Amino acid sequence: MQGVEGLRAILEERIQSISFERPPAELYNPITYTLHSNGKRIRPVLTLIACQMFSEKFDDAIDPAIGFEVFHNFTLLHDDIMDNAPVRRGMPTVHKKWNANTAILSGDAMMIEAYKFVCRTPASSLGLVLDLFSDTALAVCEGQMLDMQFETQEQVSESDYMEMIRLKTAVLLAASLKAGAIIGGANDADADRLYEFGINLGLAFQLKDDWLDAFGNSQEFGKKIGGDIVENKKTYLLIKALERASGDEKKMLTSWLQKKEFSESEKIASVKQIFEKLKIDEITQKKVEEYSDKAFEYLKEVQVSKDNKVILESLGQELLGRIK
Amino acid sequence: MQGVEGLRAILEERIQSISFERPPAELYNPITYTLHSNGKRIRPVLTLIACQMFSEKFDDAIDPAIGFEVFHNFTLLHDDIMDNAPVRRGMPTVHKKWNANTAILSGDAMMIEAYKFVCRTPASSLGLVLDLFSDTALAVCEGQMLDMQFETQEQVSESDYMEMIRLKTAVLLAASLKAGAIIGGANDADADRLYEFGINLGLAFQLKDDWLDAFGNSQEFGKKIGGDIVENKKTYLLIKALERASGDEKKMLTSWLQKKEFSESEKIASVKQIFEKLKIDEITQKKVEEYSDKAFEYLKEVQVSKDNKVILESLGQELLGRIK
Repeated sequence: MQGVEGLRAILEERIQSISFERPPAELYNPITYTLHSNGKRIRPVLTLIACQMFSEKFDDAIDPAIGFEVFHNFTLLHDDIMDNAPVRRGMPTVHKKWNANTAILSGDAMMIEAYKFVCRTPASSLGLVLDLFSDTALAVCEGQMLDMQFETQEQVSESDYMEMIRLKTAVLLAASLKAGAIIGGANDADADRLYEFGINLGLAFQLKDDWLDAFGNSQEFGKKIGGDIVENKKTYLLIKALERASGDEKKMLTSWLQKKEFSESEKIASVKQIFEKLKIDEITQKKVEEYSDKAFEYLKEVQVSKDNKVILESLGQELLGRIK
Repeated sequence: MQGVEGLRAILEERIQSISFERPPAELYNPITYTLHSNGKRIRPVLTLIACQMFSEKFDDAIDPAIGFEVFHNFTLLHDDIMDNAPVRRGMPTVHKKWNANTAILSGDAMMIEAYKFVCRTPASSLGLVLDLFSDTALAVCEGQMLDMQFETQEQVSESDYMEMIRLKTAVLLAASLKAGAIIGGANDADADRLYEFGINLGLAFQLKDDWLDAFGNSQEFGKKIGGDIVENKKTYLLIKALERASGDEKKMLTSWLQKKEFSESEKIASVKQIFEKLKIDEITQKKVEEYSDKAFEYLKEVQVSKDNKVILESLGQELLGRIK
């Protein structure tokens, strides 16, 4: 059985060997550029881990696993146009390096490439995996639409937010696992348990990401601390703070949200202080624990030996930063 | 056996009954808006016609046929963003009625919906039809990229232009036919003959469309005559004229292409006159004949009874305006 690093190395080698170098170059180069840039390859690793929980070989799952990774990278490419993001993984985004039209069209081609990889699922599982993939892909689009709508929406409820991150982040992790389970020969009940593990892990992971933006250290987080606070991003922290604040805290928080000119470090420090007063850091951490406990409950129920769960367990722990 | 109008009515009813009315509305409404607007439904009609050439029932081909139509409409939606087109089929385009981000994301969802329909191909043909569909979808993206590149390219050769319209227009017509043939149980040779029929029909159709812009009457053409001339669009006519012109004609044509301010009717009349002097109208018509003859040669070779070819023959003639 391969560990996380072994699987990641196998996937990385395969991904780097994929050549989209056919004409017209301007259509295919942005795909190579996006896909070959460093990513953590979490989704395809999940597919292979799930597959080898039920089957001795995971070769049949490699192409579909890569399909999930190509799809994930496609969503980043198109999302970056919509969010007008200039940088991704330390590199200029496709619409900045080329232009918006090229980014739209290369993204379209990239989604087709994702389907081509998923279509290489063995015939016996092809129908199931394709249905899962398409339904998941639509859900991710729904999540991105909700995320965009939240930007101009005055109030976002906690439950609306949880639904958005379920769609935008969790379902793709869940489906990557379930696809691997299906290809590995899992029965429906186990495949569904892994799906629910993925959903809850994904929710915990996104909440942790929100928490890290305010309370992490930049080395662990990998990006600048407080970026969400500066941009008034409607994270779990801000939504929860707006829900709980009253009196002075409410006034101060609202005033920071409305200020057009400010010192970034001052805003970050003040808003963090408000978060702390309202116990938002603890509340969020509890919520992360809650979802991650739920995830591991589902994993426990999967009907394979404990040994077969160790790798997924440790990847889950790593993603949630419980161990480093 | 159903005739063209019967098949079109069946498809139209099915398409109108498709409901994408689930939340978030802003993601799905543009899909319904695009798909329910009036189109000629040429591609799915071709799929059903091809299917019933080889099989008594065509029910199995309806969903995949609709998949080709949904994909075609998706390309129009995204192309209209890239071309900044304000109107399509007499209605505001999606990016004008909503906005560019909504158009990008709804288009993405629409491509996934297209795959969902194609995935309903019976299992026995699913692999073949999916490969055909994905390869065709990529080719259409390549065609759109070339078309965009031609806009800023000084010189476009006849062969580059023919390759562009093969990719952008002909392959999807050809693949719609081939998918129907495969589902209907055709052998490889006949499926390929129908594909080649579609390629040549598509090329003839696009050249005819170029010709109609200058030499048609607006009733037959369905849009304003001379639009391509006003916009300096690199059609077959202009490419051929630039290739053949010399002396005074070359000078006049170039001067019209460079003019920033002009009377539209004057430009149309003058450029048409140059086209006529250079015999571009006749050359184009000959080219249309050439490709359409080639198309019907392929159809002749298909190993089914003459009776089984009548419907496709008459649709082909109708598309090329030979009969009305």
